[in-house]
Amino acid sequence: MKIITAEWLFDGEKFLKNKAVLFEEKILAVDTPDTLKKRYSNAEFIDMGQNSTIMPGFINPHVHLEFGANKTHLSYGNFMTWLNSVIQKRDELIESCKAGCYKREIDEMLASGITTFGAVSSYGKELRACLAAPQRVIFFNEAIGSQPAAVDALYADFLQRLNQSREAANDKFIPAIAIHSPYSVHPILIKKILQNIENEPLSAHFMESPVEKEWLEKADGPFKEFFENFLNQTKPLTTAKEFLKHLDGYKALLTHAVWADKDELNLIADAGHTIIHCPRSNRLLGCGRLRLEKLNSTKISWLLGTDGLSSNTSLNLWDEMRSALMMHYEMDLESLALDLLKVVTSKAANALNLPIGEIKEGNWADIIIVTLPDIPESSEQLPLQLILHTTNVKQLYISGEKYA
Amino acid sequence: MKIITAEWLFDGEKFLKNKAVLFEEKILAVDTPDTLKKRYSNAEFIDMGQNSTIMPGFINPHVHLEFGANKTHLSYGNFMTWLNSVIQKRDELIESCKAGCYKREIDEMLASGITTFGAVSSYGKELRACLAAPQRVIFFNEAIGSQPAAVDALYADFLQRLNQSREAANDKFIPAIAIHSPYSVHPILIKKILQNIENEPLSAHFMESPVEKEWLEKADGPFKEFFENFLNQTKPLTTAKEFLKHLDGYKALLTHAVWADKDELNLIADAGHTIIHCPRSNRLLGCGRLRLEKLNSTKISWLLGTDGLSSNTSLNLWDEMRSALMMHYEMDLESLALDLLKVVTSKAANALNLPIGEIKEGNWADIIIVTLPDIPESSEQLPLQLILHTTNVKQLYISGEKYA
Repeated sequence: MKIITAEWLFDGEKFLKNKAVLFEEKILAVDTPDTLKKRYSNAEFIDMGQNSTIMPGFINPHVHLEFGANKTHLSYGNFMTWLNSVIQKRDELIESCKAGCYKREIDEMLASGITTFGAVSSYGKELRACLAAPQRVIFFNEAIGSQPAAVDALYADFLQRLNQSREAANDKFIPAIAIHSPYSVHPILIKKILQNIENEPLSAHFMESPVEKEWLEKADGPFKEFFENFLNQTKPLTTAKEFLKHLDGYKALLTHAVWADKDELNLIADAGHTIIHCPRSNRLLGCGRLRLEKLNSTKISWLLGTDGLSSNTSLNLWDEMRSALMMHYEMDLESLALDLLKVVTSKAANALNLPIGEIKEGNWADIIIVTLPDIPESSEQLPLQLILHTTNVKQLYISGEKYA
Repeated sequence: MKIITAEWLFDGEKFLKNKAVLFEEKILAVDTPDTLKKRYSNAEFIDMGQNSTIMPGFINPHVHLEFGANKTHLSYGNFMTWLNSVIQKRDELIESCKAGCYKREIDEMLASGITTFGAVSSYGKELRACLAAPQRVIFFNEAIGSQPAAVDALYADFLQRLNQSREAANDKFIPAIAIHSPYSVHPILIKKILQNIENEPLSAHFMESPVEKEWLEKADGPFKEFFENFLNQTKPLTTAKEFLKHLDGYKALLTHAVWADKDELNLIADAGHTIIHCPRSNRLLGCGRLRLEKLNSTKISWLLGTDGLSSNTSLNLWDEMRSALMMHYEMDLESLALDLLKVVTSKAANALNLPIGEIKEGNWADIIIVTLPDIPESSEQLPLQLILHTTNVKQLYISGEKYA
């Protein structure tokens, strides 16, 4: 049993003073340090000292570990150019990201305070590394494929991977399902997959790029040539709205949604889906800026993800938050900073329906401690100062076990 | 005599292959490695190897070293709140930034490849540290003061500081002049200062914040109360346009200019002034985004500066470039990346009229070498990949002397 205290506690919603956390595998109590010390006098007492903050471990809900070998190989700035570079380099990159590569990515996330991540898996190659990860992992088995003739084979492969991860399920390994995107998955495959869901988290890329919009809405644009050449396909499989209708009744995590229009956002809001925002990935692939202010006004819940190293330079959510502050330069700095800390903790846990993300009794003891370089003058500025000054955490616990 | 070569050479304008640089204090020749090796067989030959790029040392034209002690003390998000926090903490911060503090700032800049910086000095306290810096320093003696009764005293103080720095002038220490801003310097003081310029670089803050605009144009807004309370002043000293007219005939460096309107931008373009863009500072002080695309279309030359640690978290121009890429998310990624490398090298040198910023014969040998973590697939992506992956340099020379 441990009691940990620091100058501040961020419980996932707000910053509190004079608080300590009693925990084993789970959080047993949150109270003043004095009360907990008196009541649990044989617990180990850890005081992280001034300028430190106890927070829930971060949740990175969208990462492609398979592309961890990429540094400078892919072409950035334009979605089609990037996609073509991915297709060209895909085998080489995936082949060169082996166990050591996955471990580097997992360790980088760990050092920065990510205690839960959602790995989107195309082939299941990173399964072993994810099972060995100290973190809680949501393992998104991804289905992709638009050829009608291949649906059965694709589904069988998907199911085999899904079942493999279902067998491995435990408190720290959560099998989940990903549908690649509206443009790349045949509606029949989507239906087969959805029929198979047993309450698993469900994710999909959605309206990431302007070319995706042009293709889905007008069967035109650079994707037309791409689909004709690669897949002998002349029309999109579905519209964005039809795709959303498939997902009705599920609470899905839709990644990107930069190009979702007003109607689509309303459908997303009505269905209670959540959007995963990946600002750096969007910028590097020439996809522009997700209108966060529109999501806020439509009351759509959004999270923050790093995406994979195929479209980013780090898997660090602090880096991502700093980039988000710059990209959304018109949004109020102080309140955006607080929102960012909420979306990587309580809001992400809520969307994933996991007992983490808040420092409260009964949740898993996924706890990080970060320390500022100096004393902030006001508590209103704390979220911002934490984001500006943090890259890695001081201490980190997952299910109460210390990893950093 | 040294010959240095690498896979690429960025000469300040473009990327070249199979080039080497022969240098002592100055750059003596740029040619193929083979030619230089044959011709200067007794020169030391340094091959920085694959994935490395030789570049001109970076120029950070706007930094306030005096605030180097700030980490978390100032309030960000709103210009007035920030200004009030500066006024409240000013003495304490300046007092606590002593020699060691300046040295940390200078060393941080050095490690990141900044071989020339423009230090805006309010009091002259950092003069000694700047004289001892390995870098080339443009020492901007700053004048500030709006009270008519104080003009003579302020001018005398300014002149004393300016003369002190003029006496210290050498190849690596360039005395210069800064007028704080249109709203804070009395026109008579401006005139006296301008009469005294002997070809020194001239800089001023200009139209940084929305409150500055409201005050200068309408004698209203939060600055009204501020000026009444602190300075017993009820009207602005000048309009922005009048201020620009004062500067006619000088090539000034105007820092920020986020709120400059179309007419003011036209005046700036006509006068040949240069704008120093400080994206992170602008964001942190709630000043918004400088419309770089407007500067480009008006053919106004712009540079990139970190500003001081009173409104930033690092003095690293790579960090600043990465932030600029995010903030200007609608601008073409590849061409913005190349522009950013130009503005911190050749364009800055051109604005400051210094024989640096380009790898060419006759220039001072201010040279940095940076190394990418892997092989980029295309040379068009090189500027971007360099910005995405670099924080500190591999080697650094100033006037041919190795410092890192």
